[in-house]
Amino acid sequence: MYAITQEEYGGPESLEWTKVADPHPAPGEVIIDITATAVNRADILQREGKYPPPPGVTDTLGLECSGTIVSVGAALTMDRIGERVTALLSGGGYAQKVAVPVGQVMSVPEGVSLLDAAGLPEVACTVWSNLKNVLNLREGESILIHGGGSGVGTMAIQVAKAMGAKVAVTAGSQAKLNTCASLGADLLINYKNEDFVEKVNTAFGGVDTILDNMGASYLERNIDALKRNGRMVIIGLQGGSTVEFNIAQALRKNITISATSLRARPDQEKSAICREVEKVIWPWIASGTIKQVIDRVMPIQQAPAAQQLIENGEVTGKILLQVR
Amino acid sequence: MYAITQEEYGGPESLEWTKVADPHPAPGEVIIDITATAVNRADILQREGKYPPPPGVTDTLGLECSGTIVSVGAALTMDRIGERVTALLSGGGYAQKVAVPVGQVMSVPEGVSLLDAAGLPEVACTVWSNLKNVLNLREGESILIHGGGSGVGTMAIQVAKAMGAKVAVTAGSQAKLNTCASLGADLLINYKNEDFVEKVNTAFGGVDTILDNMGASYLERNIDALKRNGRMVIIGLQGGSTVEFNIAQALRKNITISATSLRARPDQEKSAICREVEKVIWPWIASGTIKQVIDRVMPIQQAPAAQQLIENGEVTGKILLQVR
Repeated sequence: MYAITQEEYGGPESLEWTKVADPHPAPGEVIIDITATAVNRADILQREGKYPPPPGVTDTLGLECSGTIVSVGAALTMDRIGERVTALLSGGGYAQKVAVPVGQVMSVPEGVSLLDAAGLPEVACTVWSNLKNVLNLREGESILIHGGGSGVGTMAIQVAKAMGAKVAVTAGSQAKLNTCASLGADLLINYKNEDFVEKVNTAFGGVDTILDNMGASYLERNIDALKRNGRMVIIGLQGGSTVEFNIAQALRKNITISATSLRARPDQEKSAICREVEKVIWPWIASGTIKQVIDRVMPIQQAPAAQQLIENGEVTGKILLQVR
Repeated sequence: MYAITQEEYGGPESLEWTKVADPHPAPGEVIIDITATAVNRADILQREGKYPPPPGVTDTLGLECSGTIVSVGAALTMDRIGERVTALLSGGGYAQKVAVPVGQVMSVPEGVSLLDAAGLPEVACTVWSNLKNVLNLREGESILIHGGGSGVGTMAIQVAKAMGAKVAVTAGSQAKLNTCASLGADLLINYKNEDFVEKVNTAFGGVDTILDNMGASYLERNIDALKRNGRMVIIGLQGGSTVEFNIAQALRKNITISATSLRARPDQEKSAICREVEKVIWPWIASGTIKQVIDRVMPIQQAPAAQQLIENGEVTGKILLQVR
């Protein structure tokens, strides 16, 4: 088969579409013939050598895909062969085929094409596991979503609204903020010329929860933006990883800070999240409560250009990479 | 009345037993004629000027007491006058009388003397609110309790055991560790010559939760001692407040860090905690499931010497200060 490979870590130009060996299914795994994959920020970090895959995982990029099951490993029956599915991957999505534990295989939501479904697993699993299981966001509470225009952001706005929350978002352009508003965001903040701490404190009296993709650079201001007993979860480190943390600032307000990574979770946790997502998020997509935001579809061979667009901040929602 | 006062922040010698004005009950407050109070580490920080009382709170030290209700403020009926009670205070315990919102008044657990009850409110409310409401400690999970020989530590060991948890403790002397063992601690760590990270990882494969009183100096090692999805709560800053926080270290393991202060909570939250403590902890004390650990009782006039003993690390459990 063909896959995107890399001889050395580097910029987008280090990615090449080359011939590689087909994957072999381990016991409990299925092989998916990939229809499409999608770009995640983590792919870019991995490409640069900053986010190595977990032990035992292929070093091919790609954390999600859609496609058709074409073979199964030991301990699985043949009756799923031919099934059209989507999957949460630990790697290997930028390829014609991938091996994945069957627990991370999900159905395709009703009304979504197999191509479009490629962009759902990462955002749906990330958003649900963090909003529900980590933040325990409740009806009537408020949430500040950083990077509201991203794939995760556009999904998080809609899931938070469906959960009955008030939503504030940050983004870096008016166009992205307009998209956020169309998805239901209540408070729009352009981080390039507005202070999110001041804006959420003025408009909401602070927020109950924060979904943060920045890490170090926002930690102190995030604590300032939280109400007493506020909770935040850090899911990305775009603003760096290490920071001076003033624990007293958090202690005075009874703040809770979580930091989570979907890829680092063991298979069993990922499977549990996938089952919840199929049960809760897929029906919201089928009913139109949640709309998928796709910036554009590009052929897999243009993965370098697709990643460059995301690095440039020019993307709202997801970029899909079509494989067949 | 008389109270412990201070002309300027400083060492134990800055504390004096002097004549001051009687407290007046605001609406919803009662006046307690104090039988005893107890020493908390926070008192020492406040004495040094490092932990100022919240706005509107007396600057007299003392976060808990026992005694008799002698008068009530507006909005309260007289029928509680004469009641023997214990109370969680925002300040003012080192005195003959104190005003306290009625929601922070608790009964005296069955079988406990009015004198001894003075040492229960802070430890019981701190331990229950953090183990149950913040950490959500569950049966079969493990907890690492730092400062196992302290008032909070000796209570936390027993509450955690009563909740069905496995308990590891750190303390600075074999005598304190022996007390911890007698209260049910499963794993004893002398922090002066043992590495708690290595010990909990070897014995338990890491812990699910941590109750931490050190803050900055232990943050990184606490994260190393936690299992995946581990939770820790910081309730004291004996090891400093600001520290370089490596978010990636936490993110790889899906760690949650909370920081809480009992005194900073609004009255309504304190009242809710007091009701839970009366319902859950008092029966455990009455039944002997939980034993109060009292190091010694000293007259209130010896508050300076009592604080010095705690600063020297010579105290296991609580020091009570008898007022009448």
